[in-house]
Amino acid sequence: MSTSVSVTVPATTANIGPGFDCLGAALTLYNRFHFTSTDRAPGTVAITVRGLDAGRVATDASNLAYKAFAYFYQQQGLAVPAVEIAVDLDVPLARGLGSSSTAIVGGLLGANGLRDRPLAQAALVEMAIALEGHPDNVVPALVGGCQLAVTGEHGISTLCPLAWHKDIIPVVAVPNFELSTAAARRVLPATYSRADAIFNTAHLGLLLRGLETGRGDWLREAMGDRIHQPYRQTLIPGYDAVAAAALEAGAYGLVISGAGPTLLALAPAVYSAAVATAMVNTWEQLGQKVQGHVLALETSGAQVTFT
Amino acid sequence: MSTSVSVTVPATTANIGPGFDCLGAALTLYNRFHFTSTDRAPGTVAITVRGLDAGRVATDASNLAYKAFAYFYQQQGLAVPAVEIAVDLDVPLARGLGSSSTAIVGGLLGANGLRDRPLAQAALVEMAIALEGHPDNVVPALVGGCQLAVTGEHGISTLCPLAWHKDIIPVVAVPNFELSTAAARRVLPATYSRADAIFNTAHLGLLLRGLETGRGDWLREAMGDRIHQPYRQTLIPGYDAVAAAALEAGAYGLVISGAGPTLLALAPAVYSAAVATAMVNTWEQLGQKVQGHVLALETSGAQVTFT
Repeated sequence: MSTSVSVTVPATTANIGPGFDCLGAALTLYNRFHFTSTDRAPGTVAITVRGLDAGRVATDASNLAYKAFAYFYQQQGLAVPAVEIAVDLDVPLARGLGSSSTAIVGGLLGANGLRDRPLAQAALVEMAIALEGHPDNVVPALVGGCQLAVTGEHGISTLCPLAWHKDIIPVVAVPNFELSTAAARRVLPATYSRADAIFNTAHLGLLLRGLETGRGDWLREAMGDRIHQPYRQTLIPGYDAVAAAALEAGAYGLVISGAGPTLLALAPAVYSAAVATAMVNTWEQLGQKVQGHVLALETSGAQVTFT
Repeated sequence: MSTSVSVTVPATTANIGPGFDCLGAALTLYNRFHFTSTDRAPGTVAITVRGLDAGRVATDASNLAYKAFAYFYQQQGLAVPAVEIAVDLDVPLARGLGSSSTAIVGGLLGANGLRDRPLAQAALVEMAIALEGHPDNVVPALVGGCQLAVTGEHGISTLCPLAWHKDIIPVVAVPNFELSTAAARRVLPATYSRADAIFNTAHLGLLLRGLETGRGDWLREAMGDRIHQPYRQTLIPGYDAVAAAALEAGAYGLVISGAGPTLLALAPAVYSAAVATAMVNTWEQLGQKVQGHVLALETSGAQVTFT
């Protein structure tokens, strides 16, 4: 069995407008997790973290990557081996870009790697969903691309990869404050009108077709949503101004990435740099410190390398 | 200008499970409307109807095809010319197969034809939506294929054609009773849980991908719905038994066509005849008189011919 394995896991954006709690896409921004088994007592862990927001990541057994690593062994009925974990972070923490999913996927794939990969991807996906509680981020983080996760009557997820036209560029603006998912959940109503339910259903269909074809007229309409954005926008100071600036600079639309506060624009390649600049400048003029990234759809998913 | 024009308009199925009030498809079953302008006084109309349920169609100025015909002229600011209309019906009346949409589309295209077609398709689509009140049937009846109609924030419809894999066969069972759309609307709740709204959103996405690829595992899950079917099924005696028989015979799923009571199964070509037989036999054993049809997606839309 291997004694050392590295896992690179992409950031993810979930929801993407009408796809609340079912749509997610992997982005070309990564966290890396390096696992080395040691000969110390089983259950021993030593964690080092460097990179973005490194100081705020737990380095004891409450570390999420380690919890996922340990969960893998427990599910297999095995003792958790002693391990050293070195984490290198580029995905901003708690900003709506799936940082917790990178840790879950990293931990599971690291454990699977050290065991010489007894589990196939489908089983790892199921474990990741169980740990995260919902599929929208962990699925694209693990398998890459843009993924629709459909929860059926019996709670089973059907996963469906979606086409994404190469000219559609994801641009993110990451502000320097956090928005807890719990707070973002609290502002949502318990029920919705039939018109709002149909609005999101139809718009999700149009979004799939817009992503597939790259048709701007469809994408501009398709990013509309009535399930979460109208309620959550108010939690993100500057939302309206940044959205207007992105559209003015040529974006098809702007949405909240995951539970926020990161804002995601989809833009044609030719305008993507201008959209990023407009989003960052507008938000900074409102007194916010912001990181902008012109990214791409990440199509490979989490990568495991033996070192 | 022409003095005589024939319009052939396909039946349509709306909703198709999760696509409530936004998804519709044209089927290879047709009504024909033949318009001849006469030299009688403007506003004079003579209507003859033959074919299925012919005795129940109005032959005076309240005839829906004539009302659409007259509407066209009124919208153009013109007097309604005297006309003879001969109607030949194969689409069952008031059964959830878009018979009223065939009349609306027939009347509009007949009028446009007699005027040597001053209006392009987009304008006719808008008129048809205005007359019918919703786009799900009139759009595929007019343009053919499977169509997603997305109503935006300002009430404007974006129309989006969807791919439909050739191996997916629509099978309908048409019972010998009517279900009024108004009654079918009354049983729907005013509000839905967030989970139900997300359920339909995600399933609509999966249905689009299933229709595009023909993947059976996706189609089997994708036809689930929580917006209308759970409430309307109870209005259709025999629904559960017919649905079970269709699935047992190899259908991917079974849904209510439009507002019912016609039931629509989607099935792989190889099982389509068996599915039709199973649906009809099961329903007839419950004492219902039923017509079954193995159809295809109609891809051309309404056809205008000058005679």
